[in-house]
Amino acid sequence: MAKVGVLLSGCGVYDGAEIHEAVLTLLALDRAGAEIVCMAPNTDQMHVVDHTTGKVTGERRNVLVESARIARGDIRDLARVKAADIDALILPGGFGAAKNLSDFAVAGAAAKVHPEVARLLREMVAAKKPVGAMCIAPAVLAAVLGKGGAELTIGTDAGTASTLEKMGVKHVPCPVHEDRLDARRKLVSTPAYMLAGRISEAAAGIEKLVADVLRLA
Amino acid sequence: MAKVGVLLSGCGVYDGAEIHEAVLTLLALDRAGAEIVCMAPNTDQMHVVDHTTGKVTGERRNVLVESARIARGDIRDLARVKAADIDALILPGGFGAAKNLSDFAVAGAAAKVHPEVARLLREMVAAKKPVGAMCIAPAVLAAVLGKGGAELTIGTDAGTASTLEKMGVKHVPCPVHEDRLDARRKLVSTPAYMLAGRISEAAAGIEKLVADVLRLA
Repeated sequence: MAKVGVLLSGCGVYDGAEIHEAVLTLLALDRAGAEIVCMAPNTDQMHVVDHTTGKVTGERRNVLVESARIARGDIRDLARVKAADIDALILPGGFGAAKNLSDFAVAGAAAKVHPEVARLLREMVAAKKPVGAMCIAPAVLAAVLGKGGAELTIGTDAGTASTLEKMGVKHVPCPVHEDRLDARRKLVSTPAYMLAGRISEAAAGIEKLVADVLRLA
Repeated sequence: MAKVGVLLSGCGVYDGAEIHEAVLTLLALDRAGAEIVCMAPNTDQMHVVDHTTGKVTGERRNVLVESARIARGDIRDLARVKAADIDALILPGGFGAAKNLSDFAVAGAAAKVHPEVARLLREMVAAKKPVGAMCIAPAVLAAVLGKGGAELTIGTDAGTASTLEKMGVKHVPCPVHEDRLDARRKLVSTPAYMLAGRISEAAAGIEKLVADVLRLA
């Protein structure tokens, strides 16, 4: 039974992990019999967004504490997880990947990644263990692993694809119900809500990503 | 294409809607081709719980605003939704059903229900439109519709079942991967995380509930 880490970035598409993508990942992993290890960095969110208005509120919330909502409390501080503890790692999307795991949302190609996120990603690649990323989360992989032409997709958005290419990535277009595989580096990506208009579309690509990640684990 | 309301109660199992149950409901509805109308009451949560510790924090959050995280911003104030607008209604569980939609968590058999929730439930029954409820959410139905022997399940928990019976309900036991149907009143219920040990178990019962609700719509 593969042990798969799921790296969360808060709870809600505009300031944290995209909730549908995270839950669909957990469902596909559980249906495949994988053991799930949810984790998140113990750090403040970049900000909190009112999801009815899209406006930033003055609140302060912690990424690990909010991510625990998706994990039903069963979550580990990312700082305590090593690549040796898991067989594979998956990053759901949502703005949390671009605001809390990294600052891609504001810094673009010059994005810096949270040190514990960067550390675990480098450990995974060094251990030749697969990493999956969906929606905007491939930008986090790009910032850490991009140099040297890692093949990743964020779907078909030309602007974002161009930014990823500036980070050294070879961007490969991908429809919502498929995924893309960099077999040499064991990186798997799918567009999810970068393209999905409805939850069943996101689910189709995420199920393929999870199956490919498990096959490589 | 049936138009199905999903009544949310916040975002997180300990103080709001159970996130997995809510997302699995949306997935099953979308896969069946239903149109989804997410809604929540515009009111403060009973409290906010840190999901890493289970402890109440001093924060104040709004049920509609937090529910919008699950709905990706596409949500309506419950006060503006009438039974005439939808063909069926589904209530995911989580403590939000027993803390925000009602005060069942503290008042038990004497629970009071948020007035807009009670109003919509009464309208649905009067219009002979189906209502589904999972996990602890059947307690909300019990408080409004229980008298006269509505048949509902919360799984196998004897204490909670006994409280529901005090509210006039005929409690019917149910395993996690099944649902129970009160055909005369068009009420459908499934235990979900009252019994589920893993997300795929919750999904099995929720998929049956959604199929039965759509069949009755």
